[in-house]
Amino acid sequence: MTFAATVLSLYPEMFPGPLGASLAGRALDKSLWALDARQIRDHAHDRHRSVDDTPAGGGAGMVLRADILAAAIDAAAPADDPRPRLLMSPRGRPFTQRMAHDLADGPGAIIVCGRFEGVDQRVIEARNLQEVSIGDYILSGGELAAMVVLDAVVRLIPGVMGNIESGKTESFETGLLEHPHYTRPQMFEDRAIPDVLTSGDHARIAAWRLEQAKRLTQDRRPDLWERYEGKEAARKPARNPPPSDGQNGKTA
Amino acid sequence: MTFAATVLSLYPEMFPGPLGASLAGRALDKSLWALDARQIRDHAHDRHRSVDDTPAGGGAGMVLRADILAAAIDAAAPADDPRPRLLMSPRGRPFTQRMAHDLADGPGAIIVCGRFEGVDQRVIEARNLQEVSIGDYILSGGELAAMVVLDAVVRLIPGVMGNIESGKTESFETGLLEHPHYTRPQMFEDRAIPDVLTSGDHARIAAWRLEQAKRLTQDRRPDLWERYEGKEAARKPARNPPPSDGQNGKTA
Repeated sequence: MTFAATVLSLYPEMFPGPLGASLAGRALDKSLWALDARQIRDHAHDRHRSVDDTPAGGGAGMVLRADILAAAIDAAAPADDPRPRLLMSPRGRPFTQRMAHDLADGPGAIIVCGRFEGVDQRVIEARNLQEVSIGDYILSGGELAAMVVLDAVVRLIPGVMGNIESGKTESFETGLLEHPHYTRPQMFEDRAIPDVLTSGDHARIAAWRLEQAKRLTQDRRPDLWERYEGKEAARKPARNPPPSDGQNGKTA
Repeated sequence: MTFAATVLSLYPEMFPGPLGASLAGRALDKSLWALDARQIRDHAHDRHRSVDDTPAGGGAGMVLRADILAAAIDAAAPADDPRPRLLMSPRGRPFTQRMAHDLADGPGAIIVCGRFEGVDQRVIEARNLQEVSIGDYILSGGELAAMVVLDAVVRLIPGVMGNIESGKTESFETGLLEHPHYTRPQMFEDRAIPDVLTSGDHARIAAWRLEQAKRLTQDRRPDLWERYEGKEAARKPARNPPPSDGQNGKTA
């Protein structure tokens, strides 16, 4: 079954855009996934095709109307459509590599791109939209966020990445940021490739890379480092496990 | 002075792409910012125009060569170009709304879009590239990440957002996720707009919104909530400040 993405947007003409080139674009050409971008405005019902209105209770900006977005969702996906429904929003659950894998393993996604000040809360609840955020910053709309999610997901679909091994040592797959890379030429300006990498000693190379990855993670991402250390500690057999600690016991 | 973005990419034809439409596109048309997307491959020096090579020490994937990327950077920006040089990379410092503001206040940015397994570490160091990540997931390349950064930055440039007030209550600007929004119609399916929002009592509305924002942040983003609570505690005058605590004393 092909991963089927339906995007609801006020700018459907932005799609496929960057997703039409490179890895995602080649996969789209080969029908390894499908993309259907639809115009929310087609479900407006006045002659100005308006989709938004002022916020109840006052305040700046405009709010996307519940009734119009609900009609757009219902036209794109019947109630029994098994695909998860995402709303790209800075208020959402942070998008992670784990979520990318879960989506790639599924039938596809219906992705709603917010615009304006926000979306009427009632349609989020009535249509079971899962709010997802790609990071702690504000975009002018959800379109780029939807593209980011789709790019991250599509490269994980079987057959899309040429070299499947390439994915396994990447940042977030191991719990660590990735070690530094080097390639020819041997000398760049006054900088040589580190000796260990040209030693041919694979065990030393692996140890050096792990050490570099740990140092980088510790330095740049104390949050990831803490989680990694916690998992490492759980993996190692405890010498004197506290008798009440069932979780450690299982892995020991 | 206009915010000037130079993007170095193997897919410069992806630009402006989504940045050519909507808010960022209108601002580009009005010359409120400038975008120059350049092809790294133009600086290759063999007849196959190759820019990558196998990783020193072995492993999957290909690495972008230091000498070729350095030539592309040097051609795009002289050594005294004051613009920060960013490399979009999952190993980077997380991009935040704070960074978007800092960039928007500056002269622009030179943004390098990674591809393949990674970029030779030596050019990162020799050309002082700041690695920046838009989130904890892996993209097929840095192009979408560069667009996300530019979209977040451009909307903060004076004159770009119509209603400047609209930015101030947004998620991350207050330290809390934003409260839910509602707009007409008064009834959507069996759901009414909450009474408080139609009460006309502005103090009650503000209190309700703050309460909702707090609850949402606590529920979805314990990390943001912890930081918010810390700041709130520092803001309140301590009744019996410990005599050695100079920081609390200052705000009391």
